[in-house]
Amino acid sequence: MIRPSSLLSRRDLDFLLHDWLDVESLTKRERFADHSGETFGAVIDLCADIAAKRLAPHNKRNDTEEPQFVDGRVRMHAEVKEALDVIAAAGLVGAGMDADVGGLQLPQVVQTACHAWFQAANTSSWAYTFLTIASANLLLAHGTPEQIDTYVRPMIDGRFHGTMCLSEPQAGSSLADITTRAEPQADGTYRVFGSKMWISAGDHQLGENIVHLVLARIPGGPADVKGISLLIVPKFLVNADGSLDARNDVVLAGLNHKMGFRGTTNALLNFGEGGGAVGYLVGEPNRGLGYMFHMMNEARVGVGIGATALGYTGYLKALGYARTRTQGRPPGAKNPELPQSPLIEHADVRRMLLAQKSYAEGALALVLYCGKLIDEEHTAATADDRAAAAMLLEVLTPIAKSWPSQWCLAANDLAIQVHGGYGYTREYDVEQHYRDNRLNPIHEGTHGIQGIDLLGRKVTMAGGAGLTALERTLRATIARATEGEAAELATALDAALTRLVEVTATIQAADTDQVTRLANASVYLEAAGHTVVAWIWLEQFLATGSGDDAFRRGKRQAARYFFRYELPRTGPQLDLLARLDRTTLDIDDSEF
Amino acid sequence: MIRPSSLLSRRDLDFLLHDWLDVESLTKRERFADHSGETFGAVIDLCADIAAKRLAPHNKRNDTEEPQFVDGRVRMHAEVKEALDVIAAAGLVGAGMDADVGGLQLPQVVQTACHAWFQAANTSSWAYTFLTIASANLLLAHGTPEQIDTYVRPMIDGRFHGTMCLSEPQAGSSLADITTRAEPQADGTYRVFGSKMWISAGDHQLGENIVHLVLARIPGGPADVKGISLLIVPKFLVNADGSLDARNDVVLAGLNHKMGFRGTTNALLNFGEGGGAVGYLVGEPNRGLGYMFHMMNEARVGVGIGATALGYTGYLKALGYARTRTQGRPPGAKNPELPQSPLIEHADVRRMLLAQKSYAEGALALVLYCGKLIDEEHTAATADDRAAAAMLLEVLTPIAKSWPSQWCLAANDLAIQVHGGYGYTREYDVEQHYRDNRLNPIHEGTHGIQGIDLLGRKVTMAGGAGLTALERTLRATIARATEGEAAELATALDAALTRLVEVTATIQAADTDQVTRLANASVYLEAAGHTVVAWIWLEQFLATGSGDDAFRRGKRQAARYFFRYELPRTGPQLDLLARLDRTTLDIDDSEF
Repeated sequence: MIRPSSLLSRRDLDFLLHDWLDVESLTKRERFADHSGETFGAVIDLCADIAAKRLAPHNKRNDTEEPQFVDGRVRMHAEVKEALDVIAAAGLVGAGMDADVGGLQLPQVVQTACHAWFQAANTSSWAYTFLTIASANLLLAHGTPEQIDTYVRPMIDGRFHGTMCLSEPQAGSSLADITTRAEPQADGTYRVFGSKMWISAGDHQLGENIVHLVLARIPGGPADVKGISLLIVPKFLVNADGSLDARNDVVLAGLNHKMGFRGTTNALLNFGEGGGAVGYLVGEPNRGLGYMFHMMNEARVGVGIGATALGYTGYLKALGYARTRTQGRPPGAKNPELPQSPLIEHADVRRMLLAQKSYAEGALALVLYCGKLIDEEHTAATADDRAAAAMLLEVLTPIAKSWPSQWCLAANDLAIQVHGGYGYTREYDVEQHYRDNRLNPIHEGTHGIQGIDLLGRKVTMAGGAGLTALERTLRATIARATEGEAAELATALDAALTRLVEVTATIQAADTDQVTRLANASVYLEAAGHTVVAWIWLEQFLATGSGDDAFRRGKRQAARYFFRYELPRTGPQLDLLARLDRTTLDIDDSEF
Repeated sequence: MIRPSSLLSRRDLDFLLHDWLDVESLTKRERFADHSGETFGAVIDLCADIAAKRLAPHNKRNDTEEPQFVDGRVRMHAEVKEALDVIAAAGLVGAGMDADVGGLQLPQVVQTACHAWFQAANTSSWAYTFLTIASANLLLAHGTPEQIDTYVRPMIDGRFHGTMCLSEPQAGSSLADITTRAEPQADGTYRVFGSKMWISAGDHQLGENIVHLVLARIPGGPADVKGISLLIVPKFLVNADGSLDARNDVVLAGLNHKMGFRGTTNALLNFGEGGGAVGYLVGEPNRGLGYMFHMMNEARVGVGIGATALGYTGYLKALGYARTRTQGRPPGAKNPELPQSPLIEHADVRRMLLAQKSYAEGALALVLYCGKLIDEEHTAATADDRAAAAMLLEVLTPIAKSWPSQWCLAANDLAIQVHGGYGYTREYDVEQHYRDNRLNPIHEGTHGIQGIDLLGRKVTMAGGAGLTALERTLRATIARATEGEAAELATALDAALTRLVEVTATIQAADTDQVTRLANASVYLEAAGHTVVAWIWLEQFLATGSGDDAFRRGKRQAARYFFRYELPRTGPQLDLLARLDRTTLDIDDSEF
């Protein structure tokens, strides 16, 4: 039996949600008025229970028996559907949606905690539901009432699933180069032609139907990203009464075989090889990318949650192993007639565990904070407050996506190392966590793209208002940390933040071209990420208050670890950025 | 057809072996007098050819069809034996061995280049031969003439293979806890009883016999590491005429299933379950660990070579992909009607390629340098020169093992990232390289153990002579770099080295316990490693001389990259070390 405590720490979630983020205060808002601290806790417990009992048991099986492409269809083992049906039956697909479509109207921050349980237990099964939720949310925001009735309600019931069809074989990161076309028909529908690549959950038999949300060009539109439209292309056409009609012209052409994340089918789909796939326009023509990006913040934070959850469960497993496995003795205590020591007594193992703790708990706090920002964006009392939350979320999104993807992956690497040779075998969980997590720096915008997003767009947007919002938020915390050790940490954070802001100004003011300015955008992303997470750790340090139990002492020590071992990494990074280093540009292709 | 140029760069090997290390000068020494620059080149070309034609083609198959445990035996596909037989038939098992046992007496530095080709092509097939060579070398150094005739000669012929049986289920890193026992018999042989774990190449049918070199305790000896003996335990007993006799009492109990490196069987072996496995003592009783460690330097440098080779081939594949795959356009050139750019034109891709180049080429230079030191240790003209080489090799060994294991693994991670989604699929090579390489920070002494070896032993041994030898070597290079840009790099190296030496002294002089002194040994290992590789890059920079071809310009730019992006990482590491940070120690187990 798998225990929830090997997936995430309920104690940590309570601390972050209640002691730190005060999620109960959200229940005073109209949207969440039917909820209470108890209902939040109950749904989180329910998710922990489903995660441990329904998802975790087949996580390894997803890896060893990945979905197969057989006779044009996907064949996968039965436990995936059994688990996802339980999630849908519990109403969790619609956890955040409006009550009038059957949703539970839970805050995003609570949903974030729920999703983290599922992703820690089985990231590749959960992906089917995650994509369904994302697709449903997009249609709820931009679809017609009829589209919502036809497609979203069955998604909430768990009968239909969703996909996001962006990439094409020649257009992965470069969405401007999409060529799939949607030809308008006399009846107001479209016929879609083209190939879509890397489509997660692109085909399966987990429900009755799959609702593909497809980016395509309507002929005659602009050639760039302003000429991309969004269409619903269902796998099976749906009759007016909701019953299924004929198979649409969407063909599964093949599956990609991945290093990890194997339980999620990743498909090449061909649209329109048999005369045209029937599609239905969402919203206005040529505005598809905007609609997609409307959901992108949430999808990107979602990637961050997944990366976090894998880092977190890997940490807990490494910790459990280090407490029970004995090996060797500390320096100066080499008598082999005495029993060997638990691994956790070795300084280097403790270093690896503290590093994992600081990454996983830091990332969890960061993504929960972003979840709360999404709630503020939607439900804060004033328009100004909502706009301020939206602005801060914009700046934090590339960090919330990339930082966990980088450092919780590093945590998984350390979890393998703590296990030694055993961690390198497939009998233990941690090598699969590493392989599953390795996708996260690639999909939903690569690490490099997040860097360009942050330095090239987010910190400069609205005349620098994004960076100002970030700076103001961090400075408010620094201002609260006036006493004792917190004040020391705040001083270090203040110095790093001041330097980050200065260097940002230097880059923007430099008399050079945009290529040079953005040459080290990934380094900038990493420096900004470590600065933000240092702030998150100062927040947690402050939130421990005056209590002195083991949990709070551990939080404080992880904060110290982050400030002593991690934050100083930003020094050389900012030096490099300040001089607008061109080393990577000043080499000819032939010289590699 | 796989080209050698996708495995390693012949141009780079020529530069390092000839322009930099002047390997031809070794032919003036008696041991290598039958060789010439041409024979060195010919054997390297032969290895490159075998690597590309015989090893690389089944590298993926080793991963997808790993050896199976069937009816107590190992079943594996046939291409492994076919390839290793070619290597043996070419005389390459005995490449470095004495002519009077049938060896070629090639210098270690040339063998290093040869092995790098094999490891770049197929690290898990090559491991069988690598372990055979290591076992044979151990017996050549410590076995009797009869043992050499009985076991080593058939190894050189490719008929027998070898293993090193150190670890046990309860004793992985902690060799002091070995419990396998060897009971002396009236006839001078021993009966061996115990279980050995993690035995690479522990069983297979690649030859007629397997020669297990087993660490065991002879009852009555000291209880610590001074009571461990080394025994030959052949899988099949060997008659006086060399023919095979009965099966010995060694049973394959199971295989470990690994994340990567899957082609190499990794076995649990039970000795003596049927009454005792016949063993033959090597050398004196109780000195087995010393004999094993005699070979350990070469085995650890061997791990470094393997890690390097995987990092190198991953880099070349990422480079090839980045030159041909088009995706997106540079900032400021977003017109989608123009063709997309090759990936290599994006700054962040160039950063990832330069990082890989600096890691892989830096590591290759480092391990070749260590190979040359082994040659100096054995063949330098004076006893003083030989001792000086041995001392420097002792200090460099933990770095030569761990630095490539860490940074060429990082290179493989970047190679995946350059490939984007494709790199995450098993259709491309780079994800397997990553998985194969992930073993290297674990086996032959984990990263943490290398750190303790360096800080706790190597830099303090002989009254600090190890560190002095390292410092003197680096300062000699700095002294040669008197002009232009080389002088600038030398100044940066000088500052880093001076700080490293100061911090080492601070740690040693600190009024504290050994646990605190070694608490951050892994951080020390990393700081020392980056300092050493910066020196290796300054050496390469100087070795480019005044030539101005693309190859030399690329070398110089990689050196600049290393000094600008990598060496500065040591600053915060050395600050942490200088204050003897106890953060990882000052947390109670219950607080994690």
